[in-house]
Amino acid sequence: MRRLKLILIIALLGQSVFAQTNQDKIKQYRRTNEHEILREFVNLLSIPNVASDHENVRRNAAFIFEMMKRRGLEPRLLEAKTANVPPAVYAEWKTPGATRTIVLYAHYDGQPTDPKQWTGMLPWQPVLRSAALEAGGKLLSLPNISESINPEWRLYARSASDDKAGVMAILTAFTALKAGDIKPTSNIKFFFEGEEEAGSPHLGEIINLNKDLLASDAWIICDGPVHQSGRKQAVFGVRGDTNVDVTVYGAKRPLHSGHYGNWAPNPAAILTRLLASMKDDAGRVTIAGWYDDTQPLGEAEQRAIAEAPQYDAELKTQLGLAGTEGSGKSLLELINLPSLNINGMSSGDVGSLARNVIPTTASAVLDLRLVKGNDYRRQVARLTEHIRRQGFYVIDREPTDEERLKHALIAKVVHRSGGYNAERTPMDLPISLAVSEAVQATSAQPIVRLPTAGGSLPLSIITENLRTVTVTVPIANYDNNQHAENENIRLQNLWDGIETFAALMTMKQ
Amino acid sequence: MRRLKLILIIALLGQSVFAQTNQDKIKQYRRTNEHEILREFVNLLSIPNVASDHENVRRNAAFIFEMMKRRGLEPRLLEAKTANVPPAVYAEWKTPGATRTIVLYAHYDGQPTDPKQWTGMLPWQPVLRSAALEAGGKLLSLPNISESINPEWRLYARSASDDKAGVMAILTAFTALKAGDIKPTSNIKFFFEGEEEAGSPHLGEIINLNKDLLASDAWIICDGPVHQSGRKQAVFGVRGDTNVDVTVYGAKRPLHSGHYGNWAPNPAAILTRLLASMKDDAGRVTIAGWYDDTQPLGEAEQRAIAEAPQYDAELKTQLGLAGTEGSGKSLLELINLPSLNINGMSSGDVGSLARNVIPTTASAVLDLRLVKGNDYRRQVARLTEHIRRQGFYVIDREPTDEERLKHALIAKVVHRSGGYNAERTPMDLPISLAVSEAVQATSAQPIVRLPTAGGSLPLSIITENLRTVTVTVPIANYDNNQHAENENIRLQNLWDGIETFAALMTMKQ
Repeated sequence: MRRLKLILIIALLGQSVFAQTNQDKIKQYRRTNEHEILREFVNLLSIPNVASDHENVRRNAAFIFEMMKRRGLEPRLLEAKTANVPPAVYAEWKTPGATRTIVLYAHYDGQPTDPKQWTGMLPWQPVLRSAALEAGGKLLSLPNISESINPEWRLYARSASDDKAGVMAILTAFTALKAGDIKPTSNIKFFFEGEEEAGSPHLGEIINLNKDLLASDAWIICDGPVHQSGRKQAVFGVRGDTNVDVTVYGAKRPLHSGHYGNWAPNPAAILTRLLASMKDDAGRVTIAGWYDDTQPLGEAEQRAIAEAPQYDAELKTQLGLAGTEGSGKSLLELINLPSLNINGMSSGDVGSLARNVIPTTASAVLDLRLVKGNDYRRQVARLTEHIRRQGFYVIDREPTDEERLKHALIAKVVHRSGGYNAERTPMDLPISLAVSEAVQATSAQPIVRLPTAGGSLPLSIITENLRTVTVTVPIANYDNNQHAENENIRLQNLWDGIETFAALMTMKQ
Repeated sequence: MRRLKLILIIALLGQSVFAQTNQDKIKQYRRTNEHEILREFVNLLSIPNVASDHENVRRNAAFIFEMMKRRGLEPRLLEAKTANVPPAVYAEWKTPGATRTIVLYAHYDGQPTDPKQWTGMLPWQPVLRSAALEAGGKLLSLPNISESINPEWRLYARSASDDKAGVMAILTAFTALKAGDIKPTSNIKFFFEGEEEAGSPHLGEIINLNKDLLASDAWIICDGPVHQSGRKQAVFGVRGDTNVDVTVYGAKRPLHSGHYGNWAPNPAAILTRLLASMKDDAGRVTIAGWYDDTQPLGEAEQRAIAEAPQYDAELKTQLGLAGTEGSGKSLLELINLPSLNINGMSSGDVGSLARNVIPTTASAVLDLRLVKGNDYRRQVARLTEHIRRQGFYVIDREPTDEERLKHALIAKVVHRSGGYNAERTPMDLPISLAVSEAVQATSAQPIVRLPTAGGSLPLSIITENLRTVTVTVPIANYDNNQHAENENIRLQNLWDGIETFAALMTMKQ
């Protein structure tokens, strides 16, 4: 009798208590299996995963394939027709009766990196630290099954956050749901890409070869960091991205700076003048037309930004910044504008290798972020035209001797392959609301909903090739050193990510 | 009887024919011993000679010490009191009755270099080429004694020109004079320095420890290249030189350029603005006071510049330059002004290692050349003040967290040790005229006499510590890639250098 009453009460309390119970099960599963999850993650992170490293990146795909098989899924490698392209790793979890299909996306490749710049470790030899390196985190050995795991510990490795954490959270959420015998509410498709950090040059090709297989109502993207405050996020857009290499020239051979200095042009000085001409002191891009086709935000989006936590002051303190660009606008406002960033710049040598020479060339790599309305080809054309207006003869290869003698200023401008546009899903679509609710249900604090992330994902490739929308649900800690040396994930963020993705697989119909 | 007549005629024709005969003897000695000279030079060039590489640089001193002993000199190592300083290698060749004493100077250390940048060789594994690399020169093995040596061949190695060629030419000239039984006209002192490329930080110390030993009427410096036309030179001054490292700062950790771009300041962009503020488009330094204390040239000096060959157009073609700095002024005019050169510049990475990050720092190494009247400490102070006027908080160490939060623009400005001032000897002194005549006597073409070289030597250290003057007589080919990768010497320049220094040791009293 008491038992029957209990069942009745539970049935009456309905879905929210049910969801709460599910969440407890997921949490319990994770707690019981933390050591095993960590071990599997360390193994995944031990495989070098730069997309251009064909052999190794494919070992990652094979490893994820095996992870899926062990979980009872029937994985497939989706190959491009083009040679030497990392495959996408794919599997399905069908839900009888489900009227909605969602694709859960993460990428298993990582940014290239200089191993020498990592502190006390190599990028693909993961280490555990008691806290962030910057906070004095000490090296720990991997815990025995008898030792408890502190969720503030950090796991350091290339892609620990970006984006093998996504693969790990999604596949572990699946295992936890299965273990708890919790049914999903949608048909679930898993899709793990292998060359996102190279600009997803073949994602469109793989999608087009598998249009029926990949049909869905939405792609949920697990990538990027949660809000700097630690609050969970749902992000409805991403910035587009493209890269341009610029090289300017001095004499054909390096010259002694004493014998020729003040007479032979110095390419480093030429490059500084060129780059300085592209932005004003406040950081506003001065290239003609740069902001022209930016699509203004809608009302829902503006409200979301206004409601998001104001975290800039705290961030400035953490990063050691006395000032910021953008004339006092907030970070959240500024990422809704197209940007121009110098990723790197080099001429001659600095430090102990520096010599008294006039270098022969000076180079910079520029990163152009796009927002809704911009087209990456158009922005590159504006940049190129700006360089021309500064008096440069613009080419996309090394100059010939004849060209050198004809043009005092020569710029080699190479638009790297793999650019793509921004993408933004309206925040008031039913699927947008369902995702927001599911993520909110796993968090005691109000989640942050953003019209766009600052970062870029090739989501326009998805929506241009498939009739679907995308929503990004990031899980990494914001201070994960993504794209840089000493990348890491805070373990609690991985644990939270598992719960988030379990909630998304079981979100309201 | 015929024989007596011949002797009489020779005696009557006097010194010029005598000099001619001496010169023939020197030439003949060199021709007979080319293979041996080359072999000894290759052995000298095989010893790594960066001044900071204590162990190896000392092996060079020991090698030269042995070279001198083999020649019958009594060499000494002149040591600094400071630890780990490369010694100067010293010897004397006394001339009974001579009223003049000259010091012949060269340096045996070389510029640091990145071995990876050398073409088909390592910097301390000399190779012979049939011509300059840029002219398609092919690798040759060292010639057997039976094979003849083409004087257009080039020997490639670090310091092949700068400045072991000086050591080699001076010591071979000595051997040739001894072999020909030709007496010098001055007391000769040999002085080979071991840390010139590091800015001669202990030359003053070594000189002051040996003031009596080094007393002389003039130092003749064998360093640098001959004129671009191939004509021999006598140079009566050198520019002063000093280096400054500048680093500017962004956030304390590298940031994802998407998540933070357009908000977090980019140090590369900050550095480009700072460096661009230092020079105008014509290459004129815009730092306040930069040209203020430049001492104008005298009449003899202005005439020498006017008489020097006009070689700029030819040089521009060779170097692939459509334009030059300095609003159309000639190279020879411009080296009589203080300069500011960017030796190297770096922030983040370029090429395949580039990532979409905002770097944490951006650095440049600046090279400041000084002319007569300038003081290197004053020029650095002007540079520093300029940086301050651009709004930077200037320090000489890493900023503290507190400073980062207080100052939006921070520049670490480090004045490297080893700077020194320019030096210029009046061109109408008797010793100046004697040197000019001696060098002219070895050349069919009119020699080039310059008030100053573009390059720098620590000659002010010599004249500030000893009552003497300096004249520089360079021997290297101008396209020797001095201070850069693929440094080389054209063999004919070494052969000519031997004759030049034999003539200087026997110049008119």
